[in-house]
Amino acid sequence: MKSIPFKGIIAYPITPFDNQEKVDIPLFKKQVDRLLVSGAHGIAPLGSTGVLPYLTDEEKEAVTEATMQQVANRVPTLVGVSNLTTDKTIYHARFAEKAGATAVMIIPMSYWKLTDDEIVQHYDAVASKLSIPIMVYNNPATSGVDMSPALLKRLLEIPNVTMIKESTGDVQRMHYLRKELGEDVAFYNGSNPLALAAFAAGANGWCTAVPNLIPELTMQLYNAIQNNDLTEAQRVFYRQLDLLKFIVAKGLPRAIQAGLHILGDDGGQLRSPLKPLTDNESAELKTILSQINK
Amino acid sequence: MKSIPFKGIIAYPITPFDNQEKVDIPLFKKQVDRLLVSGAHGIAPLGSTGVLPYLTDEEKEAVTEATMQQVANRVPTLVGVSNLTTDKTIYHARFAEKAGATAVMIIPMSYWKLTDDEIVQHYDAVASKLSIPIMVYNNPATSGVDMSPALLKRLLEIPNVTMIKESTGDVQRMHYLRKELGEDVAFYNGSNPLALAAFAAGANGWCTAVPNLIPELTMQLYNAIQNNDLTEAQRVFYRQLDLLKFIVAKGLPRAIQAGLHILGDDGGQLRSPLKPLTDNESAELKTILSQINK
Amino acid sequence: MKSIPFKGIIAYPITPFDNQEKVDIPLFKKQVDRLLVSGAHGIAPLGSTGVLPYLTDEEKEAVTEATMQQVANRVPTLVGVSNLTTDKTIYHARFAEKAGATAVMIIPMSYWKLTDDEIVQHYDAVASKLSIPIMVYNNPATSGVDMSPALLKRLLEIPNVTMIKESTGDVQRMHYLRKELGEDVAFYNGSNPLALAAFAAGANGWCTAVPNLIPELTMQLYNAIQNNDLTEAQRVFYRQLDLLKFIVAKGLPRAIQAGLHILGDDGGQLRSPLKPLTDNESAELKTILSQINK
Amino acid sequence: MKSIPFKGIIAYPITPFDNQEKVDIPLFKKQVDRLLVSGAHGIAPLGSTGVLPYLTDEEKEAVTEATMQQVANRVPTLVGVSNLTTDKTIYHARFAEKAGATAVMIIPMSYWKLTDDEIVQHYDAVASKLSIPIMVYNNPATSGVDMSPALLKRLLEIPNVTMIKESTGDVQRMHYLRKELGEDVAFYNGSNPLALAAFAAGANGWCTAVPNLIPELTMQLYNAIQNNDLTEAQRVFYRQLDLLKFIVAKGLPRAIQAGLHILGDDGGQLRSPLKPLTDNESAELKTILSQINK
Repeated sequence: MKSIPFKGIIAYPITPFDNQEKVDIPLFKKQVDRLLVSGAHGIAPLGSTGVLPYLTDEEKEAVTEATMQQVANRVPTLVGVSNLTTDKTIYHARFAEKAGATAVMIIPMSYWKLTDDEIVQHYDAVASKLSIPIMVYNNPATSGVDMSPALLKRLLEIPNVTMIKESTGDVQRMHYLRKELGEDVAFYNGSNPLALAAFAAGANGWCTAVPNLIPELTMQLYNAIQNNDLTEAQRVFYRQLDLLKFIVAKGLPRAIQAGLHILGDDGGQLRSPLKPLTDNESAELKTILSQINK
Repeated sequence: MKSIPFKGIIAYPITPFDNQEKVDIPLFKKQVDRLLVSGAHGIAPLGSTGVLPYLTDEEKEAVTEATMQQVANRVPTLVGVSNLTTDKTIYHARFAEKAGATAVMIIPMSYWKLTDDEIVQHYDAVASKLSIPIMVYNNPATSGVDMSPALLKRLLEIPNVTMIKESTGDVQRMHYLRKELGEDVAFYNGSNPLALAAFAAGANGWCTAVPNLIPELTMQLYNAIQNNDLTEAQRVFYRQLDLLKFIVAKGLPRAIQAGLHILGDDGGQLRSPLKPLTDNESAELKTILSQINK
Repeated sequence: MKSIPFKGIIAYPITPFDNQEKVDIPLFKKQVDRLLVSGAHGIAPLGSTGVLPYLTDEEKEAVTEATMQQVANRVPTLVGVSNLTTDKTIYHARFAEKAGATAVMIIPMSYWKLTDDEIVQHYDAVASKLSIPIMVYNNPATSGVDMSPALLKRLLEIPNVTMIKESTGDVQRMHYLRKELGEDVAFYNGSNPLALAAFAAGANGWCTAVPNLIPELTMQLYNAIQNNDLTEAQRVFYRQLDLLKFIVAKGLPRAIQAGLHILGDDGGQLRSPLKPLTDNESAELKTILSQINK
Repeated sequence: MKSIPFKGIIAYPITPFDNQEKVDIPLFKKQVDRLLVSGAHGIAPLGSTGVLPYLTDEEKEAVTEATMQQVANRVPTLVGVSNLTTDKTIYHARFAEKAGATAVMIIPMSYWKLTDDEIVQHYDAVASKLSIPIMVYNNPATSGVDMSPALLKRLLEIPNVTMIKESTGDVQRMHYLRKELGEDVAFYNGSNPLALAAFAAGANGWCTAVPNLIPELTMQLYNAIQNNDLTEAQRVFYRQLDLLKFIVAKGLPRAIQAGLHILGDDGGQLRSPLKPLTDNESAELKTILSQINK
């Protein structure tokens, strides 16, 4: 029986920086705590929102350890450990396991487009060194590789590869995954504006940074789905859609950082070359948030 | 108050041909009747399924008249009248109105990509000569023009333009339509594999040729949505998804014609250059249909 | 030995309309004559520039006959006879042959995307009824079908299919055509901004509407290539590039009609839904033309 | 006056690994020497071919120093120093300058799609810490960002940004660059199958890994262009086109490594997840090489 430790809302914290663009671990812990208090069903540090690829090895380790300390097993944790080389991916995956992560998330990063066989060997090499489950992440926009349902099927044959996060932004992929991989496949939506369509398609959960800004609405959407109440799900979804579109269009780290500041919280700084939203963009975000919260 | 005469399942009959590749009007009427008997909420002749662009003016008129005779006001009718030139579009739209059509469907066909202003003037010129409502059809794959939500908003300001059929295959378009155009916008799904996601997004109806082959399942999906029963809708949708994908992949006229033959009915012939499915494709379709019906 | 009657600059006249949007045959003849006088090596009526798909059968016939009268065998003629149905394509191809056309050009128009086999059967059916050569036209943007080099190879096995017009806008296609089909393949460039790259790749000719506006530069480019003078070809090409980009961006019939008026000639009217360039666009075209001609 | 130190064939060495997947510096030096001996006009270590993003900081430094030692100022050197963060890019650029590099090449790597302003600030921050020239590299397929001609124009206003490498694979970009940026813009082709078209468009040079396998043909193409002999350039280009297509399709590091082994030279190993060509692919490459060399 495959281990599938996630369901519902899997929340992605940002990795905040201080004025010297160093990772601000105390602020990171505070942000993780906000997500936990607001009801997230899982915490996923070092994702795209957490600017994983912009961090040094030491920073990744510090963020991983800080997450474990702050979550303290209240909910399951999903740690991003993707790296261009197989060796480094193994290194970070083992570090996460030892630190206490529930599972790791791996996208096949690829400067050079990988073949299907290379991708299988990559996951296989990492999986063989781990005992915790792996979530495979498909997001061609950032990885440069679009994994077909057939390839995902091969990956799911590796014993501890048990979950798929799908972020192409095309709901038909989820339909095909479920038809191709069977009703029991555990797939998660990683495309915010697809939240409603993905749950309608049977997604197990939603991997999202939006609980940093509107945790109640995020939970309400999931609850409506759990209650088989499509009318309510639709109502709740359309209330938050403008925000979902905005954070994707502007880039999650920039948009969440700005949103935290607008809400009176502390989102810290970004690391260059990433820069804060412009004043016009911030004003637009402020309007969207105030219309949701009125 | 805008007139919105359609809701639910709007069924598209094929235009069958005889052995000399002439339109077979008696067989067409029989196919329309099958759709009515099986519960379709509307009948839409001369759509893509009905190979509108492959017909002569006289054939289009004969099909329009045959539809009116056979439907006899039992359900509303939606007649395709699109043409490359504005003059011909007006001609066929007026013919449809005089023959008794409830509404007409118009896609901005464009060998030369039309500007937004040209598209507005085209619809405006046609609308000014008609009293019945117009459904605007967005399908960049066949028209070569992708109408933005902003353009669709302009078109909806024309008094008798009251409905939108959206066939890009991207459910996010429907979300944006509803956000941009308001909760009361009447939009219809024209992409078969998006049926579930579109209803979840709030579509008023589904424009589809699939009731030619599996009318019960089509109606069941719509009924589940009406009953706010997402679990049932999901179950019914996944039962028919392979067929929805197949008919889109192979081309609706080819696939529906072959399916009718497999079901023991008469789908007539196709007009060249369109040719019947290959033997392998027919065998695949037979398998899909028998798995649905077992 | 295959008949390949074209080489060099194959000029495309517009089909001008009068104030009632009727085809203006006397003006058409005048435009054909301008092209001949300015040195075109071939005349191609009823192309995209000539808005073939917007014309009735009778209008196509009248334009074909007017071309033959005006050209009077001074240069070879290439008549567009494409149609969605095989029957109509045969009809117009035979008409062109009887009227005296040197060759016909056929693009596989397809509302429903055709399979490779359907395309081969379509060309085969037409070719079997003709004695003059056929130029196959690949332009996925307007036909909806992108013919692979492998498919083009199959078509060239039909005896009187002897030439290929390639308009994808990707010069690598021409390289692959020549590698795949052999050094003797006769291919023609149909993408104006690729004129230099296509000749560098070995194209036999350039199918273009631009001689309507700048015949001297067009001929100079071809002559430089004939003289193996790349430096001169480059210089002449860059002088006209802004115009080549403009006429493609705005649509050939609109841009050529406006350009003729700017040059003090008569381009007639367009047929709706096509509308003239806006004032701003015309001003931009005027600037481009005056910079070329200064 | 802007410093533009490159012209002609800029050759990209691979970064070879040993059996433990460690960088093999002695073998790297040997490969650099082969390129020099065969006539390359410049040497560019740590490019895509040199798997820059798969190396640690220490490895990048070792490769940079080995290049300087081996080249010993015989030709100019162009060192890849791109990194996701601005700080790291500055670090490696300064290292290269101190080591003696003639210029550095920088692509705006972006996990999160950068805005135009972020890209300008990124280059500006790096340029302000350097005295040697920078070549800006546009390759949306690997960087995830497609820099418009307008943005490139802004970058060229930074004093030591003096050169552009264009790798979209679309020759029209080069035409637009030259029209937009003026005749004096120094642009280089980075798309191997576009070599002929790019030189015809006026490219200053060709950034390529293919001299590792067929140095004579690469030089002959450049010489033909220098001699204004398009006919010869065409002949030489078509002789090597199959190889150019192959190395791009299979990925440069894999294809060059395999090709070196086929030629009896030592290409070392690859670093996982990159794997050697399959046996079938190697056989295909062997055939291509033997047809070129016969």
